[in-house]
Amino acid sequence: MHAISLTGPSLDHLARVEVPDPLPPGHGQILVRMRAASLNFIDLAVVFGQYPGINYPLIPVADGAGEVISIGDGVTGLAVGDRVAVHPKAIWFAGRGTMEKAATTRGVSLPGSLIEIATVDAASAVKLADHLSYEAAATLPIAATTAWNALVCADVGPGSTIVLLGTGGVSVFALQLAKARGARVIVTSSSDVKLALARELGADETINYSTSPDWDAEVLRLTNGLGADLVLDTVGSATFGRSIAATRYGGVIFTIGFITGTSLQLDLMPVIVKALRIQGNNTGSVEDFGNAMRAIHAARIEPVLANIFGLGDIAETYRAQSSGPIGKVAIRLNW
Amino acid sequence: MHAISLTGPSLDHLARVEVPDPLPPGHGQILVRMRAASLNFIDLAVVFGQYPGINYPLIPVADGAGEVISIGDGVTGLAVGDRVAVHPKAIWFAGRGTMEKAATTRGVSLPGSLIEIATVDAASAVKLADHLSYEAAATLPIAATTAWNALVCADVGPGSTIVLLGTGGVSVFALQLAKARGARVIVTSSSDVKLALARELGADETINYSTSPDWDAEVLRLTNGLGADLVLDTVGSATFGRSIAATRYGGVIFTIGFITGTSLQLDLMPVIVKALRIQGNNTGSVEDFGNAMRAIHAARIEPVLANIFGLGDIAETYRAQSSGPIGKVAIRLNW
Amino acid sequence: MHAISLTGPSLDHLARVEVPDPLPPGHGQILVRMRAASLNFIDLAVVFGQYPGINYPLIPVADGAGEVISIGDGVTGLAVGDRVAVHPKAIWFAGRGTMEKAATTRGVSLPGSLIEIATVDAASAVKLADHLSYEAAATLPIAATTAWNALVCADVGPGSTIVLLGTGGVSVFALQLAKARGARVIVTSSSDVKLALARELGADETINYSTSPDWDAEVLRLTNGLGADLVLDTVGSATFGRSIAATRYGGVIFTIGFITGTSLQLDLMPVIVKALRIQGNNTGSVEDFGNAMRAIHAARIEPVLANIFGLGDIAETYRAQSSGPIGKVAIRLNW
Amino acid sequence: MHAISLTGPSLDHLARVEVPDPLPPGHGQILVRMRAASLNFIDLAVVFGQYPGINYPLIPVADGAGEVISIGDGVTGLAVGDRVAVHPKAIWFAGRGTMEKAATTRGVSLPGSLIEIATVDAASAVKLADHLSYEAAATLPIAATTAWNALVCADVGPGSTIVLLGTGGVSVFALQLAKARGARVIVTSSSDVKLALARELGADETINYSTSPDWDAEVLRLTNGLGADLVLDTVGSATFGRSIAATRYGGVIFTIGFITGTSLQLDLMPVIVKALRIQGNNTGSVEDFGNAMRAIHAARIEPVLANIFGLGDIAETYRAQSSGPIGKVAIRLNW
Repeated sequence: MHAISLTGPSLDHLARVEVPDPLPPGHGQILVRMRAASLNFIDLAVVFGQYPGINYPLIPVADGAGEVISIGDGVTGLAVGDRVAVHPKAIWFAGRGTMEKAATTRGVSLPGSLIEIATVDAASAVKLADHLSYEAAATLPIAATTAWNALVCADVGPGSTIVLLGTGGVSVFALQLAKARGARVIVTSSSDVKLALARELGADETINYSTSPDWDAEVLRLTNGLGADLVLDTVGSATFGRSIAATRYGGVIFTIGFITGTSLQLDLMPVIVKALRIQGNNTGSVEDFGNAMRAIHAARIEPVLANIFGLGDIAETYRAQSSGPIGKVAIRLNW
Repeated sequence: MHAISLTGPSLDHLARVEVPDPLPPGHGQILVRMRAASLNFIDLAVVFGQYPGINYPLIPVADGAGEVISIGDGVTGLAVGDRVAVHPKAIWFAGRGTMEKAATTRGVSLPGSLIEIATVDAASAVKLADHLSYEAAATLPIAATTAWNALVCADVGPGSTIVLLGTGGVSVFALQLAKARGARVIVTSSSDVKLALARELGADETINYSTSPDWDAEVLRLTNGLGADLVLDTVGSATFGRSIAATRYGGVIFTIGFITGTSLQLDLMPVIVKALRIQGNNTGSVEDFGNAMRAIHAARIEPVLANIFGLGDIAETYRAQSSGPIGKVAIRLNW
Repeated sequence: MHAISLTGPSLDHLARVEVPDPLPPGHGQILVRMRAASLNFIDLAVVFGQYPGINYPLIPVADGAGEVISIGDGVTGLAVGDRVAVHPKAIWFAGRGTMEKAATTRGVSLPGSLIEIATVDAASAVKLADHLSYEAAATLPIAATTAWNALVCADVGPGSTIVLLGTGGVSVFALQLAKARGARVIVTSSSDVKLALARELGADETINYSTSPDWDAEVLRLTNGLGADLVLDTVGSATFGRSIAATRYGGVIFTIGFITGTSLQLDLMPVIVKALRIQGNNTGSVEDFGNAMRAIHAARIEPVLANIFGLGDIAETYRAQSSGPIGKVAIRLNW
Repeated sequence: MHAISLTGPSLDHLARVEVPDPLPPGHGQILVRMRAASLNFIDLAVVFGQYPGINYPLIPVADGAGEVISIGDGVTGLAVGDRVAVHPKAIWFAGRGTMEKAATTRGVSLPGSLIEIATVDAASAVKLADHLSYEAAATLPIAATTAWNALVCADVGPGSTIVLLGTGGVSVFALQLAKARGARVIVTSSSDVKLALARELGADETINYSTSPDWDAEVLRLTNGLGADLVLDTVGSATFGRSIAATRYGGVIFTIGFITGTSLQLDLMPVIVKALRIQGNNTGSVEDFGNAMRAIHAARIEPVLANIFGLGDIAETYRAQSSGPIGKVAIRLNW
């Protein structure tokens, strides 16, 4: 069968290859004909050799979705023909994470989604909400799970105010899910076009940080001086200080961002005085993803797709993800 | 009646004064004949003028304990003669904190404990466990509440491992309370004498960071490479990086320390990868203090008193607190 | 000043009286010129002598709202002219309840809302959302707090399904608040008119239990056999068995209902096998009420008022509450 | 290989049989040479035909422990030679339960522990604390997990008071684990011998309900009229009313008991007025069991073994379990 293989650290090392057809699924396993995949920042880190401990060659890409075509013994709750998304945290089914559960990731330490047929644990597959296409569903596992867990961490609902930095994949899902939970959402960006889109998706307030570089002060102004209940920091060192300044007493800075680097000068005093919670995150469990999917189903959330690429020029797809897309970049697996 | 007044920012500005006798207690208030007080780092910051926004003259010292001598209307659950500790968070009775509730502190923004008779809200007084002297009880409000909240935050119990930095007031209460909850406790110090005391108080492991400066590696070794469930960082910038390194996936760094400064170079990457929670804290509510008192009562915990001073040389008492005492410095209010 | 006094157990013992003008507010107190009140089932129990331990004469009615006209010393965060609702749990400000905190209730063990000027603790007053009239706001304290706490208890959000029994005050607030939180709502009633109103307010599904007496089976059908995440049982013995049957594994039956009696034959087996949580409730704290108010403000929820009565015939108002109104019965305090 | 088979509903239908040797372990599976098993009430219900939907013949007994002798592909964290207990909830690895996850039970709907070599998911095996024998470890899965979850549910620690009914397996584990968490424990029994043993195990108070049939009043007396934070009701209809009466405002009745029947007359009023939580339970996940094991390891808890039987007369073992043993009945699998 077909697959894309990453044989070394650069876009030049992505190549279409033939790999052996899968074995019949083992105990608790299923075979999934992959229909779509989607990129995240972790996939960029992998393809550019910035992620530690990659063993080449590797079938890349963490997120994906497809159709169940075979079922191993001991599998319950799934049938041939079911449409599923495959969670990249391949052994983190539910409950508290561990280093091993968080690190065992499809497309990173295990074969990923750019393959015709994937063999995965049934327990890592989540059935798709009816209204989602495969391309839309493929964008969910990492980004929607992360966004959902941020909202859960800060117990976001009507009466809460949250701040989202930009309109990347996690931020857009957080926007949509936060609105579904009844929260007030403030979005920052340097692009008025992106902010207009955020408004269309339900953002209550927007801040252009090019024209208002002290966006933290603007957040305070918009919250009667209190600050936000949650800042979802998807950026890293460039924003973290302002994220702390923009958060209210007892609030949460949910930190997942590393795109501007992660080393920064930090003053712990406001963390102490405002009793802030800085919560690091590395996605979540399959159960968390299932909860996000339930919410997406209930609220009929339609993922925002910046592009849907085919397999013709896979490098182009990675470049699109590098460019800071609005929402998610998906790949249709048209072998 | 007698009181100690702080008229400016230095130990030289502490003076015994006469102040008007208290009015009868208002609605919901009680009069407490203060019998003992105890110092915390916040009291040092106040006396040395390092705390922002102090209005002189001020009756200093946050923590204290005494005897109820008069009861206002609308007070239930307290009677004349009751022995109580007075929580310095004068309007934070229970529930979630706010900036105002956390900042309104006796001895800082309100008159404190160095006075013959204090007028306080009945809702901020907690009855003493029978086994506690006034001096012992006076050491509890800030330090034991903080220690208790750290343990609650990380849900510490049998199977948990926690790390305490040194043998100051908060660390010693955390040690005693953590043992009462069944946890395993690792204590660091540069003094073998202090570590020996920690062992006597129940510490399971001790690390002398003078001889083992990479104490974080030692914590990893003692936890099979996993790291601790909780590090209670009572120090600040000098330790914070190692505190992060010593904490397990999903664990908590409870940060209250500012004595070595609070500005530091931080790498967010381990916070993200290990899904750490950095939880700032600024004491807690009267209800939290009541919970700590219940635990101290149940476990018959005896606060560790480094010294009990009289009122003869109040400056000496502050110097003792500055010197890094083992446990707490108390003041007997023998006017 | 004017007041209504309940001098004995019946509607005939409600009479307009003159009472002394209030004293100036004490420490921590405010005076509130009451503008509106609202009835709950507890007020019926009080007026009909079914509530234990009432001392006559009593100023009745738990819920009310008005304008701050005077401020005692030590009050922060409120000013003369502020529009507030007064929480009837007069000493339960926040945090965990106790028997005493839950039982100390305005209009029951303390003077209530049918008075020109009420003297209350500032800590029991919650500022009104701007969009609420006094009459609307007066309906909130007991019913909206209870509804909010039910939703919080079951962590209701997008992906949750909840069941509400009828269209009384608590059910209607639960409907509105659950929709604000993104949940799916099923409402039962014996009246198609009431069900139509529930639909207008956002109910996703309705069940007429006159024509579908086995409404629990209908709930199962509507949830793919799983059952609801939460049943808010506002009724009591007549519904409790079906409430258990309609709840999913691990779900919550939030029980506040006593109008059909509270004695019933119960089989614990489904409670055990489905790991159900039966959570009794008796309103909640002022902080809980504040959280409900924040949500009502954020979602611009407009309380459903069955009637607004004046003070002309107070007995009629109680009869309206007895009749099973849709939403709430309010009283305009037009002395 | 050898096994015990239950061919119908009675002790007479237990017979030693030969079954085919196991296949090599599949994906994610391990083979465990079972060394010991232990009985629970569910095993009695199965053997006496009182459990719905049993398909005969069945390898009975839910709980067991043994040695890993073979490892399938995809298994991490386990090695041949490891000593493990096998959790009977075969597909409930972590997180929230579902009906399916709770009902899929080894020895009930799946083959159980009375077999030479069991094939199980690696994810359902928990490594033994070093100090435990196989017989001791075999007693843990259902009873210790249930006891641990009761304590977690009520957040039991120093300052808490809990009530345990009798000295059966769950109660004894709850006693030992509650003491490890620092709680105060009250044990009831009709036998002074059993109460003396409870005292030896750390019970703070004991009540003989033969001589003090109103044990709920006694609990109130022992708690200054407040009631207990948690009553672990392991009995059922015979005790439930008093369990409610003995529980404090906001407390928990953790209900797992069915041995005296589950149908009862219940008054919801105290549930409402005291805001009680009645929490049904049906064991818990493998992660829960792992947490209990961590606590047992940390506190060096030694399970109380009423008897250790061999396989000579398996019916006798069931009769021992029926007789109300102190602690647990274990079976050494000496084929």
